Amino acid sequence: MNSDEIRRLGYRIVDMIADELEDPGRRGVYPPPQSPADMERELGGPLPEGPMDPDAILDIIRDKLIPATVNYNHPRMMSYVSSASLTLPGLVEGLVASLKIFPYSWALTPGSTQIEVTVGRWLGAAVGFSDNAASYMTTGGTGANLMALLAARVARTDWDVRRDGVTGHAPLTAYASDQTHKCLDQSFAMMGLGTSALRKIETDAGFRVRVDLLEAAIAKDIAEGLQPFCIIGTAGTTNTGAVDDLEALADLAERYDLWFHVDGAYGALAALSPRVRPLFAGMDRADSLVVDPHKWLNVPYEAGCLLVKTWGALSETFSLVHEYMRNIDTDDAHDHWHHGWELTRGDRALKVWVALKQYGASGFRRMIDQHLDMSARLAAMVEQAEDLELLTRPSLSIFCFRYVPPDLHGDPSKGQYLDRLNEAIETQIQRSGDGLITGTDLAGKRCFRPCFVNYRLTQEGIDTVIAQLREIARGVDARMRGSDA
Amino acid sequence: MNSDEIRRLGYRIVDMIADELEDPGRRGVYPPPQSPADMERELGGPLPEGPMDPDAILDIIRDKLIPATVNYNHPRMMSYVSSASLTLPGLVEGLVASLKIFPYSWALTPGSTQIEVTVGRWLGAAVGFSDNAASYMTTGGTGANLMALLAARVARTDWDVRRDGVTGHAPLTAYASDQTHKCLDQSFAMMGLGTSALRKIETDAGFRVRVDLLEAAIAKDIAEGLQPFCIIGTAGTTNTGAVDDLEALADLAERYDLWFHVDGAYGALAALSPRVRPLFAGMDRADSLVVDPHKWLNVPYEAGCLLVKTWGALSETFSLVHEYMRNIDTDDAHDHWHHGWELTRGDRALKVWVALKQYGASGFRRMIDQHLDMSARLAAMVEQAEDLELLTRPSLSIFCFRYVPPDLHGDPSKGQYLDRLNEAIETQIQRSGDGLITGTDLAGKRCFRPCFVNYRLTQEGIDTVIAQLREIARGVDARMRGSDA
Repeated sequence: MNSDEIRRLGYRIVDMIADELEDPGRRGVYPPPQSPADMERELGGPLPEGPMDPDAILDIIRDKLIPATVNYNHPRMMSYVSSASLTLPGLVEGLVASLKIFPYSWALTPGSTQIEVTVGRWLGAAVGFSDNAASYMTTGGTGANLMALLAARVARTDWDVRRDGVTGHAPLTAYASDQTHKCLDQSFAMMGLGTSALRKIETDAGFRVRVDLLEAAIAKDIAEGLQPFCIIGTAGTTNTGAVDDLEALADLAERYDLWFHVDGAYGALAALSPRVRPLFAGMDRADSLVVDPHKWLNVPYEAGCLLVKTWGALSETFSLVHEYMRNIDTDDAHDHWHHGWELTRGDRALKVWVALKQYGASGFRRMIDQHLDMSARLAAMVEQAEDLELLTRPSLSIFCFRYVPPDLHGDPSKGQYLDRLNEAIETQIQRSGDGLITGTDLAGKRCFRPCFVNYRLTQEGIDTVIAQLREIARGVDARMRGSDA
Repeated sequence: MNSDEIRRLGYRIVDMIADELEDPGRRGVYPPPQSPADMERELGGPLPEGPMDPDAILDIIRDKLIPATVNYNHPRMMSYVSSASLTLPGLVEGLVASLKIFPYSWALTPGSTQIEVTVGRWLGAAVGFSDNAASYMTTGGTGANLMALLAARVARTDWDVRRDGVTGHAPLTAYASDQTHKCLDQSFAMMGLGTSALRKIETDAGFRVRVDLLEAAIAKDIAEGLQPFCIIGTAGTTNTGAVDDLEALADLAERYDLWFHVDGAYGALAALSPRVRPLFAGMDRADSLVVDPHKWLNVPYEAGCLLVKTWGALSETFSLVHEYMRNIDTDDAHDHWHHGWELTRGDRALKVWVALKQYGASGFRRMIDQHLDMSARLAAMVEQAEDLELLTRPSLSIFCFRYVPPDLHGDPSKGQYLDRLNEAIETQIQRSGDGLITGTDLAGKRCFRPCFVNYRLTQEGIDTVIAQLREIARGVDARMRGSDA
């Protein structure tokens, strides 16, 4: 492809992006329902034998793929932990892919390697973990948590666990709240420890881990001959945004000589804001911390980040030497493959570097403060409303509430009906496609769980979604009570 | 950022790509040496507090980052397993990132989900694994191999290994050749089995695993009370491109009821070519297969792919249910998170889909045939040359040779000198920056290891690199013998 053709197709792709982002709310949030058969016909079929014209391929992407994609750039998207994509970091990804910018060895890719080291240090400083953090960019929080637990296991076992495995030793156990993200279960399954090795400790009324119960669980396991190796605190749970008492957990980890890991995938970046910084006291005492720039920093996927205090914590866990790469390994500089389990990988850091350069810490601090304000404002409104019930107060930018018809307020016999009702409302909101708020199960109750991390979100957008929710709710309630009667 | 600004910056980025790719050989392969202090000054520094102009950021990327990046698009790049980036798949990545195209649930992202399912099926058909493969796109071969081994462990244990782990059970063991990629060691360490659980079996003169020794190792482990669970064949080793006798390994796996996994990260795609297809006989009998589109298909990072025979093999290994996603889980369609360990992840499949659409299987078959030709031609030339020694004959597009000064040919006492000499030549070639061929350690000998997977590679480029190698070699040899004397 000559450079004129590259320019023509590249400009066309940029135009597709600009057209979409000119009015990011024009396309609904939810795509229209698609049957597997339709998608198979439009995007599937047998392996092509012959070539296809590039413009025809871009036509399919424009006409079939994009309309069949959730619109996370929508200004009324407030579900899951769904952030938008900042524009410049997104555009730069085309450059990264086309020119093969990626972190490999210091000799081959000093630029991308430096970018990644820099981004880790910036994130560590931004959240008050360390001004000189060692780091590894991952595909997301799941991968970063897995790596943290692997580092914890190597650091807190007294045999060569990488070589000899865990069989034949007393079972290793770790401790986290029952609100912890399920990806930790996945890690324990993958690591051969089993999900049962992760003790889920009850939480208090604010959904923070009960430190007294956590200590009791450690003591019990030790008494039974098991080997506790790690305490996991959560800095911003997915369900309610709760931040554990990290100072108390750090004390406990110190007392029992355990690795202290903090999962801050969603919440830790809020520590940028002085208003909530005190919630994160003790996070600087963690051995490892996970933050996800592709959440609150609104950079494109994939960008998770594991932060630790020393490069040794990573290299002792992951370093291997490959014969065919011996000659590009350097002793005095940074070869990324000693610090993670992957060998070839894409550059995951440049988009974060671009975002932090473009807006600075001050820009993100302002955005996070806005999200905290939006969250507090909506929670206050819910608390006043006679048809809504606030289930958790926001400490960050997630909280839970549900719709309760005014005449059913305070009627404990209606719990099951309210679960069905709120679930039905949620389904109806999805179908409207015009804004999105989704739900969760909280302590046995089905409820809504707004999450404010989308930089395109507006107060007007939030008001619209809530107004729609109430209108839909009244209709669904009337219909359901009609058919129940 | 308004749409005019998106267009302006987007076009500027496209121009940067077009300028670079107009003459991809203009910039050398190796970047000039960079000290950590220089890179820290140019791309590091403290966390920025204030904003920076987007154009200034792009200036830094153009002037500091790109020149500090290895040039994998260079037409004389024939090292590692270094492919270039096809242009359209690269450009499309900017769209994927900006519009947040990613595979999540069928309800939210049916398009990207369908693309991924399609790509897996296409790859399975392309290499003759299955016309209806289940699949999961990974960040590369390391991740895909890890997932395959996790699936093997779940399938071949008779207890709930995800819940209960491996402690308290007889040690699990697996078998692969001593030429297998080191990433498998990493998997065994991560899985808590330990690297020692992966038995490295000797290879024959063609660097294919000795099936008789592999069977003996299984029998010995069973006799000692261990639990073999997996046989791993390699379809194209990294050192020499050797393809194990997959038919014999499949027989063995059947006889002992073991999972049969094939690592074809580099080599399996060569099965597209009828000329070498017979080498891969038995690959269709594997339970799982790894192929890396970001190698021989020349798509941008990251694109690895795990192929299995049934979706159940993946969901039984990875499925978890998250409370806050319950409402978007579908029973009858495809929600990606049941089939892998990650939750949020980027779209890794679209670039492969675009590449296969644009060139078709026929386009890639032609390219692979060219690489096979180039490889055979160079090996024949080496065999004739009086200053080069062919160490392995290419079965695919990797082989090994070394420089041997004509007067030292056949002198067994010069082994150590030849190792030092070839290593010194390699270093010198890197410094020239003008083309790249790298080396490996093969059966104790330091040698060169050309690898032809780069679609931009030309016969002229290869001839130039070899001519340079010989010229550099003569100079280095004269200098080293001078200083030795």
